[in-house]
Amino acid sequence: MHKFTRIDIDKMSKIFRLNLINSITGYKSANLIGTKTDNKINNVAIFSSVTHLGSDPPLIGFITRPENGNRNTYNNILKNKIFTINHIVKNQIISAHQSSAKYPKNVSEFDKTDLKVEFKNNFDAPFVKDSPVQIGCSFVNKYFIKENKTTLMIGQVEMLFINKKLLVEDGFVQLDREDIITVNGLDGYALPKLIKRIPYARP
Amino acid sequence: MHKFTRIDIDKMSKIFRLNLINSITGYKSANLIGTKTDNKINNVAIFSSVTHLGSDPPLIGFITRPENGNRNTYNNILKNKIFTINHIVKNQIISAHQSSAKYPKNVSEFDKTDLKVEFKNNFDAPFVKDSPVQIGCSFVNKYFIKENKTTLMIGQVEMLFINKKLLVEDGFVQLDREDIITVNGLDGYALPKLIKRIPYARP
Repeated sequence: MHKFTRIDIDKMSKIFRLNLINSITGYKSANLIGTKTDNKINNVAIFSSVTHLGSDPPLIGFITRPENGNRNTYNNILKNKIFTINHIVKNQIISAHQSSAKYPKNVSEFDKTDLKVEFKNNFDAPFVKDSPVQIGCSFVNKYFIKENKTTLMIGQVEMLFINKKLLVEDGFVQLDREDIITVNGLDGYALPKLIKRIPYARP
Repeated sequence: MHKFTRIDIDKMSKIFRLNLINSITGYKSANLIGTKTDNKINNVAIFSSVTHLGSDPPLIGFITRPENGNRNTYNNILKNKIFTINHIVKNQIISAHQSSAKYPKNVSEFDKTDLKVEFKNNFDAPFVKDSPVQIGCSFVNKYFIKENKTTLMIGQVEMLFINKKLLVEDGFVQLDREDIITVNGLDGYALPKLIKRIPYARP
């Protein structure tokens, strides 16, 4: 095993530390978050911090930094109070990754990548077309994390579209039936295959 | 696409909703969190909410529920101020899943599963032996999420052990070199393979 102490970590070059610390939490969810600017421009950006918070009510969280390039998503959500979360499949990884580039606020990432916009069900935020799981969320609350000035954003699921092929009869959504990907570190895209489901554990 | 409205979600059976809402955030990290009780019993439990918060300082978050069966981990961390995070490999999934069972506080999951305990570097919380990524964390802060009474726990990386085979020269940790797994929903274990890394995106 290679050992890194806290002193080693603090002394690393910025890039080495970014790659290392972004990798050590394990595989991450890969989602495109869709929002609208006040000028009705459709914004979409990749996030790897979307996390399940609870099922009843259905709550989802993700981490954003108020003061950096992800500000578009943050500002749009605070203004419009809604956003979408869309899963990424293998053939979308180049475009999904490109959505992380720091485009100006008035540029739509849908115009700069092969990602296609989709509106439906009168929901006033853009979904990503051909994403096999699309979630329409309302903004619920935010928690400022003072330790590093990030913010935990909390949304509630208001509507949900799932490719029928993925849906199992007990509500499980089998993500590998449509090549949904996961993120390793800052920039590694990986494709999982289900090994098995394991029954509820009792002592 | 199958459409679920918020009304549909609220009317679902509990199990169907648990499976569905736990699946829709995408693939999750799979980690064993190791702590010690005040009676020096080594506790270990699986979590799928460990999230990268920032690299400098190296901060990690995860979600815990103060009032349910995960209370052991929560209480131990508040008391001892340290914990470990350990990645799970394919041949550990049965034991890792079993660690989610509601054992009494005075029972060590290391005695009830095939997981093996490891102590090193004078760190006073148990690591999981043979885990290819082991993180020693200090407790930094907690944020109570009033919407569903969960808590975001925040830890800082104090030491880090990584199987040398995984470590790439720029700091990237290639998780699939040791069959590290990811979680789909509540109970699905999946094995990812890296497709590729994509260079930093610029407009």
